[in-house]
Amino acid sequence: MSEQRPISRFGVVEPGDLPADLRERIETIEQKSGFVPNVFRALARRPAELRAFMDYHDALMTPATDGGPTLSHAERELVVVATSGANHCTYCIVAHGAILRVRGKDPELADQVSANPWAVALDERARAIVDLALVIATDSAALGEADLDAAREAGLTEDEIWDVGAITALFAMSNRLAHLTELRPNPEFFLMGRLPR
Amino acid sequence: MSEQRPISRFGVVEPGDLPADLRERIETIEQKSGFVPNVFRALARRPAELRAFMDYHDALMTPATDGGPTLSHAERELVVVATSGANHCTYCIVAHGAILRVRGKDPELADQVSANPWAVALDERARAIVDLALVIATDSAALGEADLDAAREAGLTEDEIWDVGAITALFAMSNRLAHLTELRPNPEFFLMGRLPR
Amino acid sequence: MSEQRPISRFGVVEPGDLPADLRERIETIEQKSGFVPNVFRALARRPAELRAFMDYHDALMTPATDGGPTLSHAERELVVVATSGANHCTYCIVAHGAILRVRGKDPELADQVSANPWAVALDERARAIVDLALVIATDSAALGEADLDAAREAGLTEDEIWDVGAITALFAMSNRLAHLTELRPNPEFFLMGRLPR
Amino acid sequence: MSEQRPISRFGVVEPGDLPADLRERIETIEQKSGFVPNVFRALARRPAELRAFMDYHDALMTPATDGGPTLSHAERELVVVATSGANHCTYCIVAHGAILRVRGKDPELADQVSANPWAVALDERARAIVDLALVIATDSAALGEADLDAAREAGLTEDEIWDVGAITALFAMSNRLAHLTELRPNPEFFLMGRLPR
Amino acid sequence: MSEQRPISRFGVVEPGDLPADLRERIETIEQKSGFVPNVFRALARRPAELRAFMDYHDALMTPATDGGPTLSHAERELVVVATSGANHCTYCIVAHGAILRVRGKDPELADQVSANPWAVALDERARAIVDLALVIATDSAALGEADLDAAREAGLTEDEIWDVGAITALFAMSNRLAHLTELRPNPEFFLMGRLPR
Amino acid sequence: MSEQRPISRFGVVEPGDLPADLRERIETIEQKSGFVPNVFRALARRPAELRAFMDYHDALMTPATDGGPTLSHAERELVVVATSGANHCTYCIVAHGAILRVRGKDPELADQVSANPWAVALDERARAIVDLALVIATDSAALGEADLDAAREAGLTEDEIWDVGAITALFAMSNRLAHLTELRPNPEFFLMGRLPR
Repeated sequence: MSEQRPISRFGVVEPGDLPADLRERIETIEQKSGFVPNVFRALARRPAELRAFMDYHDALMTPATDGGPTLSHAERELVVVATSGANHCTYCIVAHGAILRVRGKDPELADQVSANPWAVALDERARAIVDLALVIATDSAALGEADLDAAREAGLTEDEIWDVGAITALFAMSNRLAHLTELRPNPEFFLMGRLPR
Repeated sequence: MSEQRPISRFGVVEPGDLPADLRERIETIEQKSGFVPNVFRALARRPAELRAFMDYHDALMTPATDGGPTLSHAERELVVVATSGANHCTYCIVAHGAILRVRGKDPELADQVSANPWAVALDERARAIVDLALVIATDSAALGEADLDAAREAGLTEDEIWDVGAITALFAMSNRLAHLTELRPNPEFFLMGRLPR
Repeated sequence: MSEQRPISRFGVVEPGDLPADLRERIETIEQKSGFVPNVFRALARRPAELRAFMDYHDALMTPATDGGPTLSHAERELVVVATSGANHCTYCIVAHGAILRVRGKDPELADQVSANPWAVALDERARAIVDLALVIATDSAALGEADLDAAREAGLTEDEIWDVGAITALFAMSNRLAHLTELRPNPEFFLMGRLPR
Repeated sequence: MSEQRPISRFGVVEPGDLPADLRERIETIEQKSGFVPNVFRALARRPAELRAFMDYHDALMTPATDGGPTLSHAERELVVVATSGANHCTYCIVAHGAILRVRGKDPELADQVSANPWAVALDERARAIVDLALVIATDSAALGEADLDAAREAGLTEDEIWDVGAITALFAMSNRLAHLTELRPNPEFFLMGRLPR
Repeated sequence: MSEQRPISRFGVVEPGDLPADLRERIETIEQKSGFVPNVFRALARRPAELRAFMDYHDALMTPATDGGPTLSHAERELVVVATSGANHCTYCIVAHGAILRVRGKDPELADQVSANPWAVALDERARAIVDLALVIATDSAALGEADLDAAREAGLTEDEIWDVGAITALFAMSNRLAHLTELRPNPEFFLMGRLPR
Repeated sequence: MSEQRPISRFGVVEPGDLPADLRERIETIEQKSGFVPNVFRALARRPAELRAFMDYHDALMTPATDGGPTLSHAERELVVVATSGANHCTYCIVAHGAILRVRGKDPELADQVSANPWAVALDERARAIVDLALVIATDSAALGEADLDAAREAGLTEDEIWDVGAITALFAMSNRLAHLTELRPNPEFFLMGRLPR
């Protein structure tokens, strides 16, 4: 029933054909994951855009190291999977769902978050994170102080609120880029983090 | 981050506590799958409703055997997963996604259909099936002859169109029952059909 | 201006051509109402599905007789008319609107509920019933404990909440079947319950 | 189950307490219909607004008499009932549904139009009228030349298109005034036009 | 990039070709503003409708002079701009945005209200006015006593609430008439009220 | 009526307090425009994110210089204003509306595009650009080959389609960052490009 389509509607560029800095960054990722995530092959059509994309991603997807409260790796991926579920982005659900399974050490949560971020069973802090992300993902014009206050009441700091909002915004972009390129997830992502190690 | 909740918001009834006919039907399913899908435990609170549910399901989810053209098992599950994806029903996505992987012998399609049924890469017949299902799932008041004609042009017979429509309608109900009971998927479903046999 | 169309887009089967059990059940209904509601003629194309449909309907549309609190006949029809109004289902609005006029002994309420279930003037218990039904009919993925708590505060028991939810789910299906078959209401329904007896 | 509420949330003014011109116009209506439609009692709180409302209504709801093609009385009411159905306006559905039954000499059409204006069975001209009205009622920002061309292809003149659009716009206002005042339909409307004369 | 189109899709009638009463009213406006707003040219195709339109407008857009509390000129325009922003009506945003800049003596507020009426920074009374207008503009079927109570808590009287609702309703109509006629704003409006006098 | 709020909900950092590379880039912008756009002050809370934001912006908002067909400066701003209008983003409408006025040498187009991007009067190429942007901005999960084909038929190359999609995606992010920070537009933007030079 499924129809085979290319990795990207606009063709791909292999990392080996990229400027050295990008090639090296992607090789590092490849060494860690065992494969090159297709998003890099698709965005590589435009090296300057790919570089900005990777820089933005690096700036937002890693916990702050200044010793203050900060969203954990798993919480950042939770924002991504909830946002991508609400936006129906297949690539990001499959790829970041895999990362959430690994980071959160939970083989079931990612599928539940992407299927229904509105009602998935979460603890209070995670619920507040996802609620804020969903407003920004689907109706950001209506975002108001009450939404931020709800996050504050669940204990999020101003910087954590910024992180939730900025990650949601980054994936508002990423989800659309994946839809634009009709990006196909690598087969490796589907199983990653599902089996006990 | 995830919060443990009961299998159903309204509690469960084990098959052993059900009338004989229901107990036997569920035991047959258990023998085939290796476990009792939680939907039966949750709906068992109301045996008459569970019986009607199972009867309806049996009437619609098996290909006709009269020798005429008929939706395959995998195509019926495709309708369920597309409908449940559009309705954000976690239980049905996880459970019927598993069945679609098994029936369709495809470890990736179900995740793609549930994530984005509108744009998943399908052949012409499967695309027509999903397009019809999505109209009925999300905007059935607007269903018009043009929608049926599009299905006919892709080769669907009147009986196949009925099947697509009726399965979508059945899961309009099932998805809502799963949301009502906040039904938790069995852990077995998450991995089923993902590994080569 | 109106255009004459058949009772069902897929043709009809008269009760006399059905298996004995179905024929008898429909004859009983005919004797009570004076005519055969068209839904039976349309669904009779598939006797096994019709049987499951009637069983489900019987299981949900009659008040429990165990002596505990239970939704009245009129309250069950209220759920149907509100759900069908939100779903824009002509057959169900006309047919169950008629039954609500009869059961509720009120010639005006049904038209008001179907026109605007969100703001129709209802007492507190009926309002809570309709509010819960509307969430499940139109946005069930977002159903949360707060919606159930609102129903509980209005005095609904867990079984009454189940009934509201399950009836709404059943008519999520029925409404879609009526849209699929483009089901035409019997002329008798339009006037039923409007005149003082 | 229903709750008794006043005719208007803001109180009413009886025609006898209005300036002479308005009193006389409403008396004429009363003589024709046998009762004073509640909309006049509610809007009478503001005589200047009521006067403009009646003038606008008179200018749009009567066929042109210049001998050219013009929407019939029944077609104008069809626009009103379709618009009011899409807007869920109880007063306008009940009151203008009654007028459509009388003007269209059809006891069933109005209930079908208000329940589901998108799919009600209409001839080609009536369908084009309702399709245009629905775009303007629900998504007028997207109205484009293609919508007007569809109406032209069904034979509507520029003046008939204006009429459909302007009547829809007038009831965008009327529906909202009825919602603002929580306007209760007169009991007489519910039965009007349902019985053979 | 822009494409030149006529002032109205249905042609225009110049004030000089109108009945004397209308001609004089429009001349008065022209003397005050320095030009004839295009809405009059477009609606002049139907003098009776134009007269009702102007009457309705005059009845609602001027503060009451009975000495009681009343919406100010600027507050009335605030309702118009918020409504027209939510309805994406270019003519009304540009024309009434200009009037709001003049009446409110604020060169920035109108652009902010039309861009995002949901979150524009307003004081408590203005916020309550806009919130009520937005419910009535976009989802009036759901308007309930709670919405009115919120307005009352911000200090609005019953008459002020009526004004907010009725102005919103009037522009539900006006916005749709502008969309119907594809009404082009006069060039003068774009700059009006932006420069210090 | 308006309420004074800070430039950003999270406070601002002045360019002088930023790392040298960012300070210099912003000073260059300041010299060209005569002021520092507030978006830089708000995002400066996170220098690494600001740097990626500026890099992404630079990579996408300038026409390609390889001699092939490419979106003009004005066309790129058209995409931004249409996207920001659909997303109700006040900062981006006001700031990029100003740039579109300047780049497009048209004092009226920007206000019309932001008010109603769906129906603004555009030539065929600009219409195709905006249509594609609107699908990606508001319903990217449904983006299909038919949407791209429509753009191709209007003469857009694959690279121009990528640009439309990627700019829309970038402002899906920017609009949400502006909503997150409740970003206030600089007063200079409101008048820029409105007066003949």
